Amino acid sequence: MEAGHHAPSVGYMQPWRFIRITDQAQRTKLHSIIDAERLLTAETLNERSKEFMRLKIEGILDCTEVLVVVLADQRENHILGRRTMPEMDLASTACAIQNMWLTARAEGLGMGWVSFFEPEKLIQLLNMPDDSQPIAILCLGPVDKFDDKPLLEKTGWAKRENLQALVFENSWNERIKNATK
Amino acid sequence: MEAGHHAPSVGYMQPWRFIRITDQAQRTKLHSIIDAERLLTAETLNERSKEFMRLKIEGILDCTEVLVVVLADQRENHILGRRTMPEMDLASTACAIQNMWLTARAEGLGMGWVSFFEPEKLIQLLNMPDDSQPIAILCLGPVDKFDDKPLLEKTGWAKRENLQALVFENSWNERIKNATK
Repeated sequence: MEAGHHAPSVGYMQPWRFIRITDQAQRTKLHSIIDAERLLTAETLNERSKEFMRLKIEGILDCTEVLVVVLADQRENHILGRRTMPEMDLASTACAIQNMWLTARAEGLGMGWVSFFEPEKLIQLLNMPDDSQPIAILCLGPVDKFDDKPLLEKTGWAKRENLQALVFENSWNERIKNATK
Repeated sequence: MEAGHHAPSVGYMQPWRFIRITDQAQRTKLHSIIDAERLLTAETLNERSKEFMRLKIEGILDCTEVLVVVLADQRENHILGRRTMPEMDLASTACAIQNMWLTARAEGLGMGWVSFFEPEKLIQLLNMPDDSQPIAILCLGPVDKFDDKPLLEKTGWAKRENLQALVFENSWNERIKNATK
C-alpha cells in the first residue's frame, strides 16, 4: 500500500482507499459475490462459456491477503485535470495498483486483480458511501511459481498483440514511417 | 511502449493504442487544444484560478516525444472481467502508462500525463474511430532535475495524505485494529 500511495495522481487527489479484509465471513461473502458474477459472465460468453469456466479467475479463498481498492467519496471536489476527464481518478488508482503489482512481484508474491463483481453489492457489503466506487478485489500471497506467459495466453484464450500493430504516427491507423524523427 | 505493452490487461484484451506525434503542426494543434482546456479549467476553479494558472501542467512544445494514448475501438467485444465493469479497459491502459512512467524514470527521463483536453477534439484531430477514446497526452524527455516532492505538493496546491487514514478493515471507515491477522 505504501508503493501504491506513492503513485502519481491527477491533481494530486490521491483518490485511492484500501479496505483490508481480515474477517473470514467477509471474505466468504466476497467470494459469493465474485462467483455469482462468474456464472453470469459465462452465460454472456455463449460459445466460449465452457472454456471460460475452466479458467482460474480468482483466488480469494486461498490467498494470504485480500484488499478491496476503492475510489474515494467526494471526488467531484477535484477538478484539476478532470473537468472533461472525470475518469482520471480511476486511471490514477490503476497506477497505484500497478505499483503494488510490481512491488509484490519484486518481493516474490503473486497478485491478482479481480473485477468480477457487481459494484453495488460491494458498496452494500462494505458499508461504502454511495459516491465511492469499488474497482478491484486484490488477492495477494505466495505462489508455487510464476508462469512465463500470461495465463490467458498459455490457455489459448487470447494472443499477445504485435506491438508494431498498435503504434500509429500523427493520425489513427497511419503507420510509423521512420524509426527516428 | 514495450514496457507499457507488457502491462497486465483485463481478459488480456491489450486495449492500448499509441499515436506518436512527429509532425510539428499536429503538436502545435494539440497544444492549442490543451491550452483552451487550461483556460476553461481556470474559470471553473474560481478562487484558486490564479494559483492554478501559475502551475506547469504540460510541456508539449518543449518535450522530446509526444505520445497520445488511446483506448482501442471495438472494445465492446471484450466481456471477460468487464461485464459489470466496462471501465477496466481504462484501468488496464493506466497500468501500461504507469509501466512507461517507471521505465522512463529508471532511464533518467521525465514523463508527464496531460489530461487537459476535450476528448472529441482529439478524436477529430487524430482521425480516431468514434468508439475509441483518448486518455492521455504523454510528454517525454530529459529534464533538468527530478523534484524530491510532487510539484503540486511543492507549490502548496495539495498535501500528501497520511496513508493510515486511507486504509480500513473489513468495512468502510473501520480502522485497522491489529497490524497483523
